[in-house]
Amino acid sequence: MARKIRMGMVGGGRGAFIGGVHRIAAAIDGEIDLVCGAFSSTPEKSKASGEDLMLDPARCYADFKEMIQKEKRRKDKIDAISIVTPNHMHFAPAKMALENGFHVICDKPVTFTLSEAKKLKDIVEKTGLTFALTHNYTGYPMVKQARAMIKAGAIGNIRKVVVEYPQGWLSFPEEQKGTNKQAEWRTDPKRSGIAGAVGDIGTHAENLAEYITGLQITEVCADVSRVVEGRLLDDDANVLLHFDNGARGVLMCSQISNGEQNGLNIRVFGELGSLHWHQETPQYLKHKSIDGQRIFEPGVGELYPAAQVSSRIPFGHPEGYLEAFANIYKNFARTVRKRMNGETPSEFDLDFPTIDDGIRGMQFVETVIASGKSSSKWVKFKG
Amino acid sequence: MARKIRMGMVGGGRGAFIGGVHRIAAAIDGEIDLVCGAFSSTPEKSKASGEDLMLDPARCYADFKEMIQKEKRRKDKIDAISIVTPNHMHFAPAKMALENGFHVICDKPVTFTLSEAKKLKDIVEKTGLTFALTHNYTGYPMVKQARAMIKAGAIGNIRKVVVEYPQGWLSFPEEQKGTNKQAEWRTDPKRSGIAGAVGDIGTHAENLAEYITGLQITEVCADVSRVVEGRLLDDDANVLLHFDNGARGVLMCSQISNGEQNGLNIRVFGELGSLHWHQETPQYLKHKSIDGQRIFEPGVGELYPAAQVSSRIPFGHPEGYLEAFANIYKNFARTVRKRMNGETPSEFDLDFPTIDDGIRGMQFVETVIASGKSSSKWVKFKG
Amino acid sequence: MARKIRMGMVGGGRGAFIGGVHRIAAAIDGEIDLVCGAFSSTPEKSKASGEDLMLDPARCYADFKEMIQKEKRRKDKIDAISIVTPNHMHFAPAKMALENGFHVICDKPVTFTLSEAKKLKDIVEKTGLTFALTHNYTGYPMVKQARAMIKAGAIGNIRKVVVEYPQGWLSFPEEQKGTNKQAEWRTDPKRSGIAGAVGDIGTHAENLAEYITGLQITEVCADVSRVVEGRLLDDDANVLLHFDNGARGVLMCSQISNGEQNGLNIRVFGELGSLHWHQETPQYLKHKSIDGQRIFEPGVGELYPAAQVSSRIPFGHPEGYLEAFANIYKNFARTVRKRMNGETPSEFDLDFPTIDDGIRGMQFVETVIASGKSSSKWVKFKG
Amino acid sequence: MARKIRMGMVGGGRGAFIGGVHRIAAAIDGEIDLVCGAFSSTPEKSKASGEDLMLDPARCYADFKEMIQKEKRRKDKIDAISIVTPNHMHFAPAKMALENGFHVICDKPVTFTLSEAKKLKDIVEKTGLTFALTHNYTGYPMVKQARAMIKAGAIGNIRKVVVEYPQGWLSFPEEQKGTNKQAEWRTDPKRSGIAGAVGDIGTHAENLAEYITGLQITEVCADVSRVVEGRLLDDDANVLLHFDNGARGVLMCSQISNGEQNGLNIRVFGELGSLHWHQETPQYLKHKSIDGQRIFEPGVGELYPAAQVSSRIPFGHPEGYLEAFANIYKNFARTVRKRMNGETPSEFDLDFPTIDDGIRGMQFVETVIASGKSSSKWVKFKG
Repeated sequence: MARKIRMGMVGGGRGAFIGGVHRIAAAIDGEIDLVCGAFSSTPEKSKASGEDLMLDPARCYADFKEMIQKEKRRKDKIDAISIVTPNHMHFAPAKMALENGFHVICDKPVTFTLSEAKKLKDIVEKTGLTFALTHNYTGYPMVKQARAMIKAGAIGNIRKVVVEYPQGWLSFPEEQKGTNKQAEWRTDPKRSGIAGAVGDIGTHAENLAEYITGLQITEVCADVSRVVEGRLLDDDANVLLHFDNGARGVLMCSQISNGEQNGLNIRVFGELGSLHWHQETPQYLKHKSIDGQRIFEPGVGELYPAAQVSSRIPFGHPEGYLEAFANIYKNFARTVRKRMNGETPSEFDLDFPTIDDGIRGMQFVETVIASGKSSSKWVKFKG
Repeated sequence: MARKIRMGMVGGGRGAFIGGVHRIAAAIDGEIDLVCGAFSSTPEKSKASGEDLMLDPARCYADFKEMIQKEKRRKDKIDAISIVTPNHMHFAPAKMALENGFHVICDKPVTFTLSEAKKLKDIVEKTGLTFALTHNYTGYPMVKQARAMIKAGAIGNIRKVVVEYPQGWLSFPEEQKGTNKQAEWRTDPKRSGIAGAVGDIGTHAENLAEYITGLQITEVCADVSRVVEGRLLDDDANVLLHFDNGARGVLMCSQISNGEQNGLNIRVFGELGSLHWHQETPQYLKHKSIDGQRIFEPGVGELYPAAQVSSRIPFGHPEGYLEAFANIYKNFARTVRKRMNGETPSEFDLDFPTIDDGIRGMQFVETVIASGKSSSKWVKFKG
Repeated sequence: MARKIRMGMVGGGRGAFIGGVHRIAAAIDGEIDLVCGAFSSTPEKSKASGEDLMLDPARCYADFKEMIQKEKRRKDKIDAISIVTPNHMHFAPAKMALENGFHVICDKPVTFTLSEAKKLKDIVEKTGLTFALTHNYTGYPMVKQARAMIKAGAIGNIRKVVVEYPQGWLSFPEEQKGTNKQAEWRTDPKRSGIAGAVGDIGTHAENLAEYITGLQITEVCADVSRVVEGRLLDDDANVLLHFDNGARGVLMCSQISNGEQNGLNIRVFGELGSLHWHQETPQYLKHKSIDGQRIFEPGVGELYPAAQVSSRIPFGHPEGYLEAFANIYKNFARTVRKRMNGETPSEFDLDFPTIDDGIRGMQFVETVIASGKSSSKWVKFKG
Repeated sequence: MARKIRMGMVGGGRGAFIGGVHRIAAAIDGEIDLVCGAFSSTPEKSKASGEDLMLDPARCYADFKEMIQKEKRRKDKIDAISIVTPNHMHFAPAKMALENGFHVICDKPVTFTLSEAKKLKDIVEKTGLTFALTHNYTGYPMVKQARAMIKAGAIGNIRKVVVEYPQGWLSFPEEQKGTNKQAEWRTDPKRSGIAGAVGDIGTHAENLAEYITGLQITEVCADVSRVVEGRLLDDDANVLLHFDNGARGVLMCSQISNGEQNGLNIRVFGELGSLHWHQETPQYLKHKSIDGQRIFEPGVGELYPAAQVSSRIPFGHPEGYLEAFANIYKNFARTVRKRMNGETPSEFDLDFPTIDDGIRGMQFVETVIASGKSSSKWVKFKG
């Protein structure tokens, strides 16, 4: 008989943001039990965080090493771990988990450097375990509909892609106020790596564009800025794009677009029409052409199967960010369960970002940052 | 130490719709464990449904009576039951659960008749247990913001309320096709009671209007129709309203508004301004006045505490229907837990619909249906 | 060779609002020359107003009688007059103009009473001249598209109509401040007649609903209010409607919907789908059904001819209220010109409201006001 | 006493598009009389076009030279000419008109080359006559409100500007079909100059950005494309921008964005907030910041005078493209009239684009086209 996937979490203790999102996403579909964790940098805080979550105190560990070692020996041991720490703390727990037989689902960007990402890929391949990366925006049903429509030729050959992720939350020097942990690590090269906005949200934009279009960026021309005085990493970037089919594009990401929230937005223009999607009203996918405008919504009319299986409720009842995020966890859980049972996951089960998306993301970061410093117009996307 | 609330479910087996919604709503915040259920009308189907949910087969019961009796004797017995059956099956399990010491959370409308609702109120009061009714739309953060703004006088004395719930899913005789269980029971007087659209969604509109404004409807003038030929219950109603402060209003509910999904919409006009909210884009609350239009959103600017505590994620990441529904479950769980621990629930914990809302709803149904048949202009709201 | 229609204006002097709108509407298409006027209640003010408009001082008359008498004797005399005075001043100049051989275009509501309207119809018929009524909202291209779609069966048999015209400009007792002429006459029974909001904007809603659907209202049940203390005429009404094909509906009009501007909005639900149009973004017509939502816009895709001929510029360049108003003037001018030349106007030339629309409007006013005072539920629409 | 400005038109005959727009724009406010023209390239077509417009046949001239020479000798001669020919035909009539004492209002881009534009500036300065350029989008009231807000510091120091003008009408090779005159000359280097989309609509985007922000672009990095096979001029461009205050930006213009109409859109991000405006719903100006979102509309709340004087009708009745265009004509007419009368035009009268805007536009065209061909990252804006 089927059973829920048992999961442990690394990071996500008191005061963290993204850990709570992962927990809800894992809980929504009732396919995963969060049973243990190493939630914080100190054993005490980790225990207290686990207590908040009403977990068994014996399974609230001091750190990920203890968690992996002790869980490994339990009869009811976990199947998978979820990594929700800052970027510089992804690689070590991911590596150890995989090498000890645990499947891994990890926040993005996948690692601190491109070189770490490549090493991780070797480990994933060697162990044969499942590795999922939470580029959560690809979990939205209408994103999947867009992708399926493009694949089916609904807008013809793609000519132009405009993707942007404006935020405004770092319009002021939040990281210098001493009260915003999130702002502190996001702007700290030691924890975030070489990029700020480009790494945190530029990668989401890049991933979304490549997921929806099926194209790959081949070269970029980037104008990368640190707008807020004293900030150590970029907080705004405007990037011209060239794609492998000859299409052109623009990618913008910003943390200083005051008044914007999470305005991830994509427009794909093909020969025959265009598709428009905005993360803040994710239930609508606009299809425009010379013949007019049609709006696609979950549950309405004929949708492609990949979109259909990503909704939980009938039309007109909006699902949101957490449900999109949950689609990554649901597909991860189903893939892990089937693989543990010797079954073959379906194409829908496998519809989640992998280590390859992680490597693309790190390549994007390194290429854009390099272009930002270059006086050459175009910089090739690193292979 | 705190522990999760253990819950059993009545109804919601294979092929049902609302049961799945309740399960997700209960799971989201990690405060409730669904541990058992009597999911269907036959023991076999009930077991199979429990298996789908990966529950302990020993706790997948043949019917609610067996569930209540057997759970009562377990050491790890449930604390509460969730009732998600059609309307005519609410009263019996609710009564038995309460009388056996279990808290109850129940789908709406609360019972089959007003008289049942009143009996249930007596039982709730006698047992002193917690009873929640899932008028889920009041769980949206911006609904709570609207309510708090009105209470604080932001739009002054209320003059007019326009509330509507148009759906289009019964534009055709779905119930006569033999393939739509939902359509069948919703249009069947034996399972739904005296009202169709009025009972199913008119009550949501009524509850929302009274929740947001703090007013009570005192009399109605209703035009109630059965539009689709052969249908046994109303599928459209237009209702003029009078409120206890002298305000006027209009309530519309419809299942034959072809092209509409779940267009629950409310506009409240006060002396000083107005508030506008639409369920399909629930993250926006518009405040309009002679000075212009301002849009309130979760996490942006200064919101009232009741709105703040109802969001889980920062601005710009939309939460939806399931999270609003989960707010009812979360508050129910917290109230139950505190009461079990001898603590006093906060005003925020207690922010969920109760048996009194259930009685208002049944009064609304009976009054509107009576008005629809009456040639008198105004019919008093039944006390 | 064709020449422009020469027109005189009655009313619309300094401080008036709607006169200026008529002048722009008449000017836009270059088919009408405004050459004279009797703009105000005093000769001096009338002259001064004409001077503001850079008209020949010799043709700025003291009152409409002088204008009609003197123009009649000129070689280059006017062809038509435009009446833009308050309601109680429509009948006399219209009668005199027609009886002296001038075509008439008149602001709505057509007259002060239903009985006047019927007399005017007799005069129009007797003289055989052209009479147009400026129910300007039917001039919008997408309104015409909606009408044509319904006529062609795009949404099947009509089941429900929701039409509303909320305004907020009389939320406070503007008419008691002594500074708002518009508010004064609109709320003065001596100048506006028996109705306030119902007459001023309720008639627009009624006209729009009947124009788009091709149906006629047969009976109403109205809740008519005077919300602002001391006001002499209604400022809010909610009305249940029955139509001649059995369809039901709701009509709302309000001047105390604080925060609303000119929110004229109509939704028509048919068996097969629905149409949605909002005056404040008039370039969009939404067609919704079970298959999804399509948005019609001027110039995009295949539109019906009546919509096509009502736009002046290519898609994506919004036309607005003045252009819709101008469509009434343009069609009036073309009809007048063709009739003067002995030609037959086309169906598109004749697409403007006539004295019959005026009579329907006055019937609507009298019926709704009567229903508001009645304790009977339904009041038949007066014949 | 004041009189209307008498105007002649060059271009805009049968089959042309923009001429009709200019005529409506000139007519709307009743301040200008179109009395003559040289509408087409052949005398016959010019006459016929004038007849369509119901003008005096004696004043329908064979070409602009005849018009200027003959009008000059009339007692009731024109005051000004309007030039609405393709780009390569702007300079000659503008020069001759100015040198013969006529004021000029001219479609954009001002001339065929930057060098012509500079010569024209000399002539304007030498003659002391009024020259207006119809960058019509700056005529929208909410554009003027945005400009005034920025000037007053409402969003603080500007950090980022995103301006775009996507169209889709040239998604297919329209110019090769032999039926689309507009497409033919717009894509013909002999009539449009060195740029296609960049000249036609890129200049609108540039002008709008500089008008609203008060900043100047200092250098660009452009990716300029010819997407449709066989096309002779660019039909898409993505441009990175640097402004004189250090702000960064992106400008996109496109004629192959299939499904787009005239999606001119600007977002200006300042330290304290941002402003968002979209040409297709021009009545809304969104002001967003950390405190929330407010929507400005004509006639609502407190607006800056420049916005107030640009609306003709009360709030909620949308004005559109033609009224914005008319604001240019109205201000031009008032300036001309005052100057003819020896009066001083007000700052509002003078609020129209001039020869200086024309020169900026030609500089923009030359710089962007040069950058598109350059392998250097940044190209300085030509002085």
